[in-house]
Amino acid sequence: MGSVSATRHSVGAADSYLTGEIGHAYVQTMQDKDDSGNIKVATTVKHFVYGESRGGINAASMYGGINHLYNDQLRPYLRALEADPAAVMVSYASVDLVPMSANKYLVRDILRQRLGFEGIVMSDAGGIAHLYTESRLAGSYAEAALLALEAGLQMELSPQSPAVFPTLVAAAEDSHVGQLIDEAVLNNLQLKFATGVFDKPLPDPAKVNETLRTPAHLEISRHVTRESIVLLQNDGILPTTPSKVALLGPFADIRNYGSYAPVNSSDSRYGNSLYQSLQAKLGTSNVTLVQGVDFIDIDTTNIATAVSAAKEAGLAIIVLGSLSVGTTDPLVTKRTDGEFFTHANLGFPGAQQQLLDAVLDASIPTILVLSGGQPFVLNNSTLRSNAILHSFLGGEFTGDALAEIIMGDVNPSGKLPISLPQDTSATPVFYDYLPSDDTGTADSILGFHSTYQFPLLSRSPPMPFGFGLSYTDFTISAPRARASNSSVEVRVNITNVGPIAGKEVVQLYHRPNTTTGIEFPVKRLVRFEKVDLHAGEGVVFANWRAPLWKLSRDYRGPDPSGVPALSNST
Amino acid sequence: MGSVSATRHSVGAADSYLTGEIGHAYVQTMQDKDDSGNIKVATTVKHFVYGESRGGINAASMYGGINHLYNDQLRPYLRALEADPAAVMVSYASVDLVPMSANKYLVRDILRQRLGFEGIVMSDAGGIAHLYTESRLAGSYAEAALLALEAGLQMELSPQSPAVFPTLVAAAEDSHVGQLIDEAVLNNLQLKFATGVFDKPLPDPAKVNETLRTPAHLEISRHVTRESIVLLQNDGILPTTPSKVALLGPFADIRNYGSYAPVNSSDSRYGNSLYQSLQAKLGTSNVTLVQGVDFIDIDTTNIATAVSAAKEAGLAIIVLGSLSVGTTDPLVTKRTDGEFFTHANLGFPGAQQQLLDAVLDASIPTILVLSGGQPFVLNNSTLRSNAILHSFLGGEFTGDALAEIIMGDVNPSGKLPISLPQDTSATPVFYDYLPSDDTGTADSILGFHSTYQFPLLSRSPPMPFGFGLSYTDFTISAPRARASNSSVEVRVNITNVGPIAGKEVVQLYHRPNTTTGIEFPVKRLVRFEKVDLHAGEGVVFANWRAPLWKLSRDYRGPDPSGVPALSNST
Repeated sequence: MGSVSATRHSVGAADSYLTGEIGHAYVQTMQDKDDSGNIKVATTVKHFVYGESRGGINAASMYGGINHLYNDQLRPYLRALEADPAAVMVSYASVDLVPMSANKYLVRDILRQRLGFEGIVMSDAGGIAHLYTESRLAGSYAEAALLALEAGLQMELSPQSPAVFPTLVAAAEDSHVGQLIDEAVLNNLQLKFATGVFDKPLPDPAKVNETLRTPAHLEISRHVTRESIVLLQNDGILPTTPSKVALLGPFADIRNYGSYAPVNSSDSRYGNSLYQSLQAKLGTSNVTLVQGVDFIDIDTTNIATAVSAAKEAGLAIIVLGSLSVGTTDPLVTKRTDGEFFTHANLGFPGAQQQLLDAVLDASIPTILVLSGGQPFVLNNSTLRSNAILHSFLGGEFTGDALAEIIMGDVNPSGKLPISLPQDTSATPVFYDYLPSDDTGTADSILGFHSTYQFPLLSRSPPMPFGFGLSYTDFTISAPRARASNSSVEVRVNITNVGPIAGKEVVQLYHRPNTTTGIEFPVKRLVRFEKVDLHAGEGVVFANWRAPLWKLSRDYRGPDPSGVPALSNST
Repeated sequence: MGSVSATRHSVGAADSYLTGEIGHAYVQTMQDKDDSGNIKVATTVKHFVYGESRGGINAASMYGGINHLYNDQLRPYLRALEADPAAVMVSYASVDLVPMSANKYLVRDILRQRLGFEGIVMSDAGGIAHLYTESRLAGSYAEAALLALEAGLQMELSPQSPAVFPTLVAAAEDSHVGQLIDEAVLNNLQLKFATGVFDKPLPDPAKVNETLRTPAHLEISRHVTRESIVLLQNDGILPTTPSKVALLGPFADIRNYGSYAPVNSSDSRYGNSLYQSLQAKLGTSNVTLVQGVDFIDIDTTNIATAVSAAKEAGLAIIVLGSLSVGTTDPLVTKRTDGEFFTHANLGFPGAQQQLLDAVLDASIPTILVLSGGQPFVLNNSTLRSNAILHSFLGGEFTGDALAEIIMGDVNPSGKLPISLPQDTSATPVFYDYLPSDDTGTADSILGFHSTYQFPLLSRSPPMPFGFGLSYTDFTISAPRARASNSSVEVRVNITNVGPIAGKEVVQLYHRPNTTTGIEFPVKRLVRFEKVDLHAGEGVVFANWRAPLWKLSRDYRGPDPSGVPALSNST
């Protein structure tokens, strides 16, 4: 493909190392070159810089200082930029009160000069207009355009009118403005050359359709879905091949693919709901579907029917979640999640919790399946479920993969890319918190936590980043580290001590003994690797040999007065 | 009093202007000089710098950059420091990854040099030790002590062993260390002279007791409590003098004074619970007390008794809250709030919500009274209450003042010093959010909020900072502003158009048309004044004449690369 295209798939994880690794692999794969040496798909890394939806607000402001930026927020970009993405899109957020569309410091000083990025810097939709209409850093659209241009933006994403950059035409004869426009146009033209737009005909749609959805591609998709589902809890009920099952909940027969999924989830050619997949496995007559409740409406009158069906079957599989589908899906007006959505609560919307509680109150064996691109709060009532699986927005093979995992055809091996909060308001929550966040509590200062009857909030989430169960068991030995002047090598033994084959993600976390000037988190992921082991099989795992600079990337030292001396060299 | 004492009363409000005004008045009052020209009570302003309990965590880290610090977090200090407090205590928090006990930049460069503070800088309990034991910026206690001393700390608060500063003795002969110690000792001695420790005998306890709790003092306390209670909702049920009332809820007969209140709330000489105050007003036999539920235990079996009592009385007053009492109170082990407490949730602890729901389900007229030093989430069920009052931690006259307000002897006039969140996880929430926080949502970008059935989170809290009702009504005219080169004068007409006398807090909020470089919040409180008006009375209110620099204190401009040129001159 020859045009400049922004890839808008989120690769978000609540860990800056993992996000960087995924981003790097994504850019490298998409920008693979064709036989003529042209970039196949030009990628845009976004959003520079964005960290968290503070207060539940999409595009919330960030207040970060330079140490925080370098050691936390910028880390994924350092890694993704090594793959040389064609473009970077700035975020809607303000960083330290400066909106990114006008943030000359972060775009020109940091992204360009310090990180050496040479591709296109573009706005998000409406981002430049907001400098006038929302942030009021500009008194007109023309002033907003100039602020953005001076900050280093070179392309405007503007799906709606009015676009703001065209107002620059009036000032283009000005030598200052003209020079900035020339720079922006040059960068745009360079990318068009790099992608072959000027050398080759436009892609032939027939050929594109030959390539898309080949059996090999679909097999990759199916594989990824199988690997990504996370088993959060299991008292031994799984795996199971029941003779009868009651399939409950509003997501039991919905394909929840995400608002940016390329496939219209209402198109029945693409994938199965869990209901369809279970019917195929167990026989149509052995699966009783009762949705019971809605995820918007709070009517609870059909819960009784659902409980009856579950009692009769002797086993309930309950699929709860939050809906995120594309704009062409008939369900779009029932969305509760996805782009633009600002959440007040991480519980289950509608009357879903009531359905789950009623089934659990009736002591019916229950497998809970979560569906949606978010953490869900698992309260004490929910944790009574015999097993819990999180399927996120797993693509068109989600229903099939869930059925395979429930029945044991596939041994689950996914790990949480986020932490699940202890309570809906105990957010943000992340495993790599700063040690000073542990101080100043009853626990740490005076040790009198135990004298109180009221449960205090724990800093470590009960189900943290990296957590996930399997149908087999693994032992991992204590790491043995060997450091030389320039590198460190870490070895562990990992053994499958359980009854069946399975995969484990071995995760290496790091914390220096001491650091100078700024705090290091209580621990931080620095390497991970998935291993596939037969029952009883063990391996020595030693490929974590790394130059020291790679580990020290975790820590750039303090710089309270300005810009650290940062090198992006490998 | 002659010794250096840290005053540990929190004057926190979710507004940096208000907090500064309260802090300034507090320091000025306490540090009033006696006849010999000595400071009466030396104050310590704390915590420098601390902003918010992020993620519900006491002492949580802050990530702030310099623009955020100057325009938000430092603002209360700018004002409080004008009153020349004797000392400043640093916080436990890390700011931009640097723990405050080692934050040379914020203590020496900002607090000392830029803000011109010349008093003592002290640690909080354990704060210096944490540099070694938690943050690991130091490899030993001695290294921790040196880091803190170099950062500018001059006194260690150390209620538990081991103290860390004594480890400096070994290095005191070192000229660098010795000089820093001399500086610290000099500052401590200067304060002792200023407070008269070296000139006068120690205070005579008998004389102290003559002064404490004089009728005049107690009247001030009673007045403040009457003025601070906030009426949040009223369908006309208030004021009321009922012939019978059922008083429900676990806080109906508790004096909830806060964990730092000087008076032991278990001491029956000090103040009344609402139960005692209502009995005194209505007669013992006309008030039926049923606590119904506990605030820790989740047992709901006594709710039925409470509902029956309420039905019989025809009116329920329900007192719910979160407990914060001093360490000598027998209830201390049942605390759910106060210092050291990290909260997962802003709802009512225990089974309190269930009690309220049951009474409201029975359609009994209900007055809800909130007790506790926190915002409570008021969910849709709770909002069915006919009236809601928040009494916070109002001191020993809280029960009396509540009874006076319920019966109309006092017309409520308090305003919220915080915003009440829309949902327990929609935090932090504040009225003075940045305009860019409003962008990037379905609402603002594409205007399709209304096409969704799922309620999105609103950026403006339903009950914001500054909100509070009265038993009368006021009209306030649009402000008329007249600006000269050096000052601005704002006038409004305010009229009591309701049936009875009452007080209104007139609040002036400001937003510049445009700002340069950094965003200004959507609005910001710049002046307030409480006016007392008879029914029908009106005044022209014009004493908001202020030099422009006072308003411009709201905004210090951008400084992405380091330290702004800040002047603290008046």
